[in-house]
Amino acid sequence: MFANIYLSMQNKLKIINDPVHGFIRIPHEILFDVIEHPYFQRLRRIGQTGLLNLIFPGATHTRFHHALGAMHLMFTALETLRQKGIKITEEEEKGAMLAILMHDIGHGPFSHALENMLMDDWHHEKLSLLLMHKLNEEFAGQLSLAIEMFQGKYHRKFFNQLISSQLDVDRLDYLNRDSFFTGVSEGNINTQRIISMMNVCGEGELVIDAKGVYSIENFLTARMFMYWQVYYHKTSALAEFLLVKILERAKYLVSQGMDLPAGENLKYFLHRAKSSATDEDIYRFNQLDDNDIIHAMKSWQNSEDFILSYWCQCVIQRNLPKTVISTRPFDPEFVEEKIKKTNEFFGIDNGKELVHEIKRKLLPYDTEKQPIYLLQKDGKKIRLEESQDQLLSGLMVHKTARYILTFPRDISQTIS
Amino acid sequence: MFANIYLSMQNKLKIINDPVHGFIRIPHEILFDVIEHPYFQRLRRIGQTGLLNLIFPGATHTRFHHALGAMHLMFTALETLRQKGIKITEEEEKGAMLAILMHDIGHGPFSHALENMLMDDWHHEKLSLLLMHKLNEEFAGQLSLAIEMFQGKYHRKFFNQLISSQLDVDRLDYLNRDSFFTGVSEGNINTQRIISMMNVCGEGELVIDAKGVYSIENFLTARMFMYWQVYYHKTSALAEFLLVKILERAKYLVSQGMDLPAGENLKYFLHRAKSSATDEDIYRFNQLDDNDIIHAMKSWQNSEDFILSYWCQCVIQRNLPKTVISTRPFDPEFVEEKIKKTNEFFGIDNGKELVHEIKRKLLPYDTEKQPIYLLQKDGKKIRLEESQDQLLSGLMVHKTARYILTFPRDISQTIS
Amino acid sequence: MFANIYLSMQNKLKIINDPVHGFIRIPHEILFDVIEHPYFQRLRRIGQTGLLNLIFPGATHTRFHHALGAMHLMFTALETLRQKGIKITEEEEKGAMLAILMHDIGHGPFSHALENMLMDDWHHEKLSLLLMHKLNEEFAGQLSLAIEMFQGKYHRKFFNQLISSQLDVDRLDYLNRDSFFTGVSEGNINTQRIISMMNVCGEGELVIDAKGVYSIENFLTARMFMYWQVYYHKTSALAEFLLVKILERAKYLVSQGMDLPAGENLKYFLHRAKSSATDEDIYRFNQLDDNDIIHAMKSWQNSEDFILSYWCQCVIQRNLPKTVISTRPFDPEFVEEKIKKTNEFFGIDNGKELVHEIKRKLLPYDTEKQPIYLLQKDGKKIRLEESQDQLLSGLMVHKTARYILTFPRDISQTIS
Amino acid sequence: MFANIYLSMQNKLKIINDPVHGFIRIPHEILFDVIEHPYFQRLRRIGQTGLLNLIFPGATHTRFHHALGAMHLMFTALETLRQKGIKITEEEEKGAMLAILMHDIGHGPFSHALENMLMDDWHHEKLSLLLMHKLNEEFAGQLSLAIEMFQGKYHRKFFNQLISSQLDVDRLDYLNRDSFFTGVSEGNINTQRIISMMNVCGEGELVIDAKGVYSIENFLTARMFMYWQVYYHKTSALAEFLLVKILERAKYLVSQGMDLPAGENLKYFLHRAKSSATDEDIYRFNQLDDNDIIHAMKSWQNSEDFILSYWCQCVIQRNLPKTVISTRPFDPEFVEEKIKKTNEFFGIDNGKELVHEIKRKLLPYDTEKQPIYLLQKDGKKIRLEESQDQLLSGLMVHKTARYILTFPRDISQTIS
Repeated sequence: MFANIYLSMQNKLKIINDPVHGFIRIPHEILFDVIEHPYFQRLRRIGQTGLLNLIFPGATHTRFHHALGAMHLMFTALETLRQKGIKITEEEEKGAMLAILMHDIGHGPFSHALENMLMDDWHHEKLSLLLMHKLNEEFAGQLSLAIEMFQGKYHRKFFNQLISSQLDVDRLDYLNRDSFFTGVSEGNINTQRIISMMNVCGEGELVIDAKGVYSIENFLTARMFMYWQVYYHKTSALAEFLLVKILERAKYLVSQGMDLPAGENLKYFLHRAKSSATDEDIYRFNQLDDNDIIHAMKSWQNSEDFILSYWCQCVIQRNLPKTVISTRPFDPEFVEEKIKKTNEFFGIDNGKELVHEIKRKLLPYDTEKQPIYLLQKDGKKIRLEESQDQLLSGLMVHKTARYILTFPRDISQTIS
Repeated sequence: MFANIYLSMQNKLKIINDPVHGFIRIPHEILFDVIEHPYFQRLRRIGQTGLLNLIFPGATHTRFHHALGAMHLMFTALETLRQKGIKITEEEEKGAMLAILMHDIGHGPFSHALENMLMDDWHHEKLSLLLMHKLNEEFAGQLSLAIEMFQGKYHRKFFNQLISSQLDVDRLDYLNRDSFFTGVSEGNINTQRIISMMNVCGEGELVIDAKGVYSIENFLTARMFMYWQVYYHKTSALAEFLLVKILERAKYLVSQGMDLPAGENLKYFLHRAKSSATDEDIYRFNQLDDNDIIHAMKSWQNSEDFILSYWCQCVIQRNLPKTVISTRPFDPEFVEEKIKKTNEFFGIDNGKELVHEIKRKLLPYDTEKQPIYLLQKDGKKIRLEESQDQLLSGLMVHKTARYILTFPRDISQTIS
Repeated sequence: MFANIYLSMQNKLKIINDPVHGFIRIPHEILFDVIEHPYFQRLRRIGQTGLLNLIFPGATHTRFHHALGAMHLMFTALETLRQKGIKITEEEEKGAMLAILMHDIGHGPFSHALENMLMDDWHHEKLSLLLMHKLNEEFAGQLSLAIEMFQGKYHRKFFNQLISSQLDVDRLDYLNRDSFFTGVSEGNINTQRIISMMNVCGEGELVIDAKGVYSIENFLTARMFMYWQVYYHKTSALAEFLLVKILERAKYLVSQGMDLPAGENLKYFLHRAKSSATDEDIYRFNQLDDNDIIHAMKSWQNSEDFILSYWCQCVIQRNLPKTVISTRPFDPEFVEEKIKKTNEFFGIDNGKELVHEIKRKLLPYDTEKQPIYLLQKDGKKIRLEESQDQLLSGLMVHKTARYILTFPRDISQTIS
Repeated sequence: MFANIYLSMQNKLKIINDPVHGFIRIPHEILFDVIEHPYFQRLRRIGQTGLLNLIFPGATHTRFHHALGAMHLMFTALETLRQKGIKITEEEEKGAMLAILMHDIGHGPFSHALENMLMDDWHHEKLSLLLMHKLNEEFAGQLSLAIEMFQGKYHRKFFNQLISSQLDVDRLDYLNRDSFFTGVSEGNINTQRIISMMNVCGEGELVIDAKGVYSIENFLTARMFMYWQVYYHKTSALAEFLLVKILERAKYLVSQGMDLPAGENLKYFLHRAKSSATDEDIYRFNQLDDNDIIHAMKSWQNSEDFILSYWCQCVIQRNLPKTVISTRPFDPEFVEEKIKKTNEFFGIDNGKELVHEIKRKLLPYDTEKQPIYLLQKDGKKIRLEESQDQLLSGLMVHKTARYILTFPRDISQTIS
């Protein structure tokens, strides 16, 4: 009986306050309708950067806000292209805005961290697409063009490139937003400047006006700094890692017959056997958000399983294990010693559960996967790294890796 | 066995990123220790502005961050006073920083909204004081001076005025922070400017250098705009109101013998009879945060009680009832008609549960309660509103009130 | 022979960096051409806020930059109106952008301060119009619509209101820009927010969407703070006053037969007798800028006339006379005494030349001259001050005045 | 008689508004006194970035403001070091603040561009030192420590490093300030973050806490972007080049007996023969500022010398010659052809005067000249480029060069 309440007419907000981009306008009715749908409202309860707020307390912003921000940048980008003489129909505008609005709709609790944990072999893009199709049914096909663009099947390539490439509005928004909310100014990019340099070349491909070369290089370095200073910060990497281990442990314990307190829907997934997604899976997945995981971890602090309770206390009380970082993998003997100390300190024999090497790697600028093109004054496009003006791009084409070893804080004290 | 894990040595962060104030330094060990205590870590899970993020999606910031920010401003204020020749000892500095750090420690889930709902007749300041005393025991009396300052018992009055007055660092931080995270620039104040104008007059009272008069007036108008545009925005007022009604309803249903799903600790309070606070009350209260309420509301959407499920859906799916606002109380006949329509529309007879008048009032500048004083060049202090330079203060000494009527959205459609 | 160099093709910049608004685009060829004309380039050498940089060292920005900024805000405003369904032709867009671009083109050195000093009875709007007509000839009538709009003769009233009213893009830009460059954050307004609330009502009049009421009130208070804190700051008022006195004195000395060093064109005006403007007047006026006045004052520091040299030293060495400020006119006896002391101190008998009362007055919101209208949801327009939501507008409809007495600094020392 | 007016007591500003750093405090009397001295006030009339405002219209800020900003950063840096336990006496604080305040006092009109033009073989640092000594006499030796620090003779090396090294407060201020005023956000650095990472190691050398590595790399890339995007922008390089050529030409013409209009002091230098600096030289140099050059160029637009008038028109009317840029020197044949076209177009035979190659080169991070050191947790210092955390520093140790060819705009039109 109440299931349809959300379908009733709403107080249609036409303008949303965004501290990052200023006002966000919602120029089309269908965008409203998607925003108001419970699938999308759920994103209000999914953090954009997971447990990063343990390290950067301002980073409490949500996927919901990011999706709106990216939609706004898409609008700005399309307006800019129009001012440069590129024809874009209203239908295309709607499609592109809807596609980017929905691009994260398949994210589960804690986004990337728990991807595949609840529903094996389901990553968020697969789920996003599935949910887009469900919504498309509800909205009588109004999302078809958006889905086409999202999948890269639409003939004008730049729409898909604005949705998903090395310089898409998704990245522009999340870098800008994450830098804003974390307060890490090294990651600050000027999206207005970058977007104002966007263009479309003859073949319908997204390019950057040549004079924007430094804005793009600044974007690439800012992104690299954000990765190593924020997303791959050793404590961030650790927190994300713990989340995964906690869920793994919980599923393992449940499989061993232990009864773990949890909300109804989370419990469903802890007990669910590997299989392809059913309608019930989808329904229940859409009820889950960060809240369910936090709530469970709070009560699991008192679990009789030492490992589970230890990790949950670590996270909830922000009393995190120790980490050391290196540019090379750790010496197995060094790791072995940490395990031994852990066993001794806690009087346990599965200390290896508490000692782990975490690896993070980054390719700052990928010349293979949709390279960035500059549009020269003579109308020719050229790869960024081949421009005579580039200063750093040519240097950023190699992967960097870092190795993080984590072990209980207490044992390090016994050592030092 | 694991209860004391948090007491073990921590990864002592000395600098915390804050997008509002830049870096926050933690200059004293005892400040760390309090920050790392689970009582304080709990504030990470209590939003600074409750459900306001339903209206301002950026407003997901926490009491934890606010408390750190206020502590930082206290440090800055004391440094400024020292540069003006006011002697402040290190003990006083510690005391003042600890006091403001802990000033919100007694906040329960959703702060003000649910104050008194879980534990009747307990407001957050009473609880904060109680928890400060508990912490003081744990920290062997190191918080005594802080508590004295918090209570206004310390002989140098300006410390308490910096903690709690019309121009305290609490207000400076929350206005600045809430304006930052909501994106409502009308509430933006320049805390650096205001603090740089602070001074202490002969009797040890906090005053503002006369030339700072416009910064103060700007602060007062910014605050007024924040109240009417953000905190008392009709939808904000409504969301807060719904939260209260939901908890009231839940307690009522429980008292009628209904079994409502909820986490263990929330359940405890739903069943708790009125009485003075026991040790168990305090313990369990400290386990609660916003998360418990959201988790409960998510499951109560499916309650068999129409009122409870209706409200919870309203909040969780952000499908809020309609509101109209007025400078005068609503005509009882108008209200009566809304109730009638509600009964008709839903086929219920307790429609009056869904129609409410909410009142909000504000005194922009209170000349009675700790008025703001200016320090003139001749060394005399003078009330802000009596200064010959003031432009608006004298006009902001009267209360303004607004009345908000809420009723189900659906019935308004049947009308129009 | 070289006179026409500027008419040759230029390096057509399409984007100009503006720290205030981000990038400024120049979407039409004719806008370029006007910008590149020497009449307009001259504005690069006319400061936006005259000698205010003596008090606010950042305030070195120019009329040139302001004119570009205002043109940019006009573009943004028109785009916003279009998104709300108001039809605006490309010709109208060009006209409105040209009109605001040229609105200050008649400003002479030090803008308002020296208005009428060089050419009596010529204020800058009269000159602007005259120069617009001259340009219109050069540009073969392409500026006709702009001139019509500037004069308020175009039938769609909102264009003129965007150019010149209590809430025009001129004010929006200068408040924003002056606050930015002075660093006086109390004057900071969010132009994006204000513009996004603009609308046009049935009769073609500029209105503000009702929900923007606080943004408008914030604009009015910010403007008031800027006047009293910056433009009418007692030292700013003094500096502007000295400039006028210096030019007056120079003209007087020249009329008495003294030979004062000055550039050729400034000399022309010092010697020019009162009369209506000739073609030579116009030509020479267009050669003048702040530079000529500063250059002259630098050499006049060594004039044999005590008064002139004293004032020029005051300004050039920033060794300004003393000022006291009051809400009431000064007592004639008090003034008399200052004159007496001045005569004694310097051993002169025209000390009254160095003692002056300067008056400044402001009406924060003028309900007579183009009041601000709100557009209610029901489509009716209502005066801002009559809205039920307004908090301060109704209180800002009265004039405030301040009186500043200035006298030589040295004499105040002999007294105290 | 009036020469000492500036020595009389002044309206001692204790706080100066700075849009870049917020308020600047002046904590010591002697700092005031130096600021009020005409030597320092002269810097108000010397632009920080010369003719760059022809390209970036916001860049009208002055050396005066920069010197105050750098002084403020020095204060902040010393406070930070104190909070980290480094002892710094009040005398040292005064010395360091005075030294940075005066570091640019020897700049002549248009700073670097015209260095050595007026007084051969005198660069600004030599002149700054000479003027510091003169001031030191006037201030009875109060500047001795400052001069010692400026010259690097003080035993605690970090004071000099804060004044002049690859990471000094001079660079921090000018990068931040120039980015702010130009609006080129790629050059934006967060000085607060960088300063908070400063430290002093055992030997008294300036180092950066290891965790600040990305802030430093961000600073180095931002600086590199500022050079190529702003300072070495081809049009910036051209404008600066024209200024030099104009002065050279003027001196040449004067040496040939031509009478060029100019203010008295500029005329003096145009006529001055090469020789070591006399007292009169110094006196007259201190009367000169940007104003004198602009004023002269305005009148030289009408010079009978074609070359001089052409260049002055180019600058004053912002009708600049054409430029092309390359990573390699230009082919002599290509240059020859441009000269030929120029001769043909203008009907002159000294067309080579109007065709020039300008070279700019940059070493982003100089590992030889005062390399940047990181302070590791273990207390050891390590070169930035050798840190395992560095991402880009190791790649920025090579020089980059660009070649700019300029020739009259008109001839390029005859070609195309």
